Amino acid sequence: MNYKNFPMVPRVVFGRGSFNQLSELISPKRLNINAPFIFLVDDVFKGNAWLTSRIPLAYDDKVIYISTKDEPKTSQVDSLVEEIILTSRQGTSGIIGIGGGTLLDLAKAVAIMLTNEGEAKDYQGWDLVKNPSVYHVGIPTLSGTGAEVSRTCVLTGPEKKLGINSDFTPFDQVILDPELTKDVPKNQWFYTGMDCYIHCIESLTGTYLNAFSQSYGDMALQLCKQVFLEDNLSDMDSQDKLMMASWHGGMSIAYSQVGVAHAISYGLSYLLGTKHGIGNCIVFDHLEEFYPEGVALFKEMKNKHDIYLPKGICAHLDDSEFDIMINISLSLEPLWENALGKGWKKIMTREKLKQLYKKM
Amino acid sequence: MNYKNFPMVPRVVFGRGSFNQLSELISPKRLNINAPFIFLVDDVFKGNAWLTSRIPLAYDDKVIYISTKDEPKTSQVDSLVEEIILTSRQGTSGIIGIGGGTLLDLAKAVAIMLTNEGEAKDYQGWDLVKNPSVYHVGIPTLSGTGAEVSRTCVLTGPEKKLGINSDFTPFDQVILDPELTKDVPKNQWFYTGMDCYIHCIESLTGTYLNAFSQSYGDMALQLCKQVFLEDNLSDMDSQDKLMMASWHGGMSIAYSQVGVAHAISYGLSYLLGTKHGIGNCIVFDHLEEFYPEGVALFKEMKNKHDIYLPKGICAHLDDSEFDIMINISLSLEPLWENALGKGWKKIMTREKLKQLYKKM
Repeated sequence: MNYKNFPMVPRVVFGRGSFNQLSELISPKRLNINAPFIFLVDDVFKGNAWLTSRIPLAYDDKVIYISTKDEPKTSQVDSLVEEIILTSRQGTSGIIGIGGGTLLDLAKAVAIMLTNEGEAKDYQGWDLVKNPSVYHVGIPTLSGTGAEVSRTCVLTGPEKKLGINSDFTPFDQVILDPELTKDVPKNQWFYTGMDCYIHCIESLTGTYLNAFSQSYGDMALQLCKQVFLEDNLSDMDSQDKLMMASWHGGMSIAYSQVGVAHAISYGLSYLLGTKHGIGNCIVFDHLEEFYPEGVALFKEMKNKHDIYLPKGICAHLDDSEFDIMINISLSLEPLWENALGKGWKKIMTREKLKQLYKKM
Repeated sequence: MNYKNFPMVPRVVFGRGSFNQLSELISPKRLNINAPFIFLVDDVFKGNAWLTSRIPLAYDDKVIYISTKDEPKTSQVDSLVEEIILTSRQGTSGIIGIGGGTLLDLAKAVAIMLTNEGEAKDYQGWDLVKNPSVYHVGIPTLSGTGAEVSRTCVLTGPEKKLGINSDFTPFDQVILDPELTKDVPKNQWFYTGMDCYIHCIESLTGTYLNAFSQSYGDMALQLCKQVFLEDNLSDMDSQDKLMMASWHGGMSIAYSQVGVAHAISYGLSYLLGTKHGIGNCIVFDHLEEFYPEGVALFKEMKNKHDIYLPKGICAHLDDSEFDIMINISLSLEPLWENALGKGWKKIMTREKLKQLYKKM
C-alpha cells in the first residue's frame, strides 16, 4: 500500500472582506515591475465596481475578463497563455483567478502552462506536469466546486474532458471571502452547492474512503444540510458555511475520489457542453440505484428551493452520440472503481450506461 | 479587520503503515551526503525495533532519543542545536520529529534555531523568527496535541512558557500513521486526547470563533465524542479517528485561539513542571463556571475510562509561588481575550485565579 502525499494549499485567509487584503498578500511575490500579475476574472463582474475597484493593479498588471458560458477548454488555456506571454516579456509574477470553478481551473491551468512546454491537452491526466507553475492565487466567488483546494483543474480537450492532476496544480494562496458570493443567482447557488453535496456523497460511499476523507466529507455534508435544509441561518452565516463546505468537500475528494455522478456528467459536458454544476444535478437525480439516501435528500433540497432541472436533454441523440458520451464516461476508471469497486465493469456496462443517459 | 494568512502544512500523508514511506518522502530533500537528516525520537521507542528498524538512516544521519519526562525547554533546544551543528558541518538536510507534542515541538524549534541566530528564548512570542527554518517533518505517535498542524511550538524558557509562533514553524511534511499510536498507555491516551477535546471547547466557545474554525472544531469534537463516549469503534477505527480529531482540532485553534484551561495550565507547567496533557485535565475539571457543558462531558469521559486525576497539587504552595503561576497565566492575553472577551481583566482577577489554583 502506498499512500498519496497530498499537497495542501500552503496559505489561506478566511473572512468576510478578506478580499481587501489581496494587495498586501501578493505584493511580496512580484518578481519585478515588468512582470505583471494577471487577474482572470469572471465577466459577470465586468462593470461591478464593488469588486473590480478592489483589484490592486500596478505597473503592467492586467485584468482579463472571461465568460463562463462554456466549460473551460484546453484551447482556451493555450490562447490565454499565448496572450500573456506576448504581453509580459519579462515573465509573469502571478495568476489570480477570481470566480467560480471555471475561473479557478483556468487560473490553475494557465499558471502551469506558463512554465511547461506544449499544449494544455498534453497534460490532461495524472502527474504529467514537469515544472513548477507560476505563483497562483484562487479567490472563489461561488461555493461548491472545491476547485480552490484540489490538485486538479478540469478541462475539455479535443479528445477528453479530464483534469490536469499534479502536485503543481494547487493554488499557492487562497482567499476565502464569503461576502464575494452574496449576489450569486439562486439557481447557480444551488447547482454549485450541489456539486459539493455530491462530492460528499460520492466520497463517503466510495470504496477509496479512509478516516481522513471521511472526516472532511462528514463535515462538508453537515454544512450542506444546514445550508440547504434548515431555515435558521442568516444569509451571512449561510454564505460562510457554504464556503467552508466547499473547502472541506474538496479536501474529502482530494484524498479519495468522486464517483458515478461525475463520471456520467463528464460525458454530458463533453458532448453537449452541459455546465458542470447543473450537469451533476441532472445526472444525480437519476442515481437512486447507486446512492439511495443521497438522492432522496437531494430531491428534498431541490423541492425545498423550487429548482426545476432540464429534462430530455439526451432525447434527440443518435447512437454514435451516445457512444461518444459512454466512451468519455467509462474512460474515467478511478471514478468507477471508487464508486463500484474493482468489479465495476460488470456492473456498469455500456448498455446500462446508455439507458441511464436516455433517462436524462 | 485584518485576517490572518494561515500557513497550512503543505504536504500530508495519511494511512496505516504510511510510516514506511518516510525514506521515499525525505530522500529528495537531502542537500548532500554530508548534510544528515536528524531524527528526534521519543525515547519510549528506544529498543522498539518495530518502529526504529524503519527509520531510514543513510550517510551521516543520526537518531537522537529524547526523554519526555519534562516539558520541552528553550535550553534543551539550544543544546540540541549546538550538538547538531557540531556534528554536521555541511548543514542539516532536515529534522524529523517522531513522538508526541513534546517531540514535535522540539523538532519545530530545532529546525528554526538551526537557521536563526541567538537562543530559542529570544523567539518566544509572535512572529519574531526572521529566516526560514530547515526542512522539518512531523510524525505523531500520540494523538491530541495538534502540534502536527500548528504554527507554534510551545517551550518553557527562563522567563515564560510560550510558543515560537511564526510562519516558519509549521512542518513541511506530516505523516499521519495511526498505527504508530497503538501502544500508547491508557492514561497518556486519555490526557493527550483530552488536549484535543479541550482545544475544541475553547475554540468553539471563544469570542475569536469564525466559520472556518467552527467547522474544524465541530468535526474534531464529534470525533472525540465517538472515540471517548461511544463503544462501537474498533481499536483501529478509534486510532484513525483520534488522529484526525487532533489534526482538525489543531486547525480549529490555529485560526482562533485556546482559552481558560490552557492559560491556567501554562502556570502549572511553568512552576511545577506539570505535563501539558494532564495539566489541562487537572485544570479543566474545575472550569464548570466557564465551560459548563464542556466540563460535564469531560467528567463523563473521565468516569467512563476510570481516569483519576491528581488532587491537591497546589496545596503546599506559598503566596510567592502562586504569584509566579498567576503572572505566567495572566500574561497570555490573547487566550483570555478569546475566552472572556475584551473585558476579561474584570472577570479574571488575580484573586479569582488564585482561588482556582488553590482548588487544584
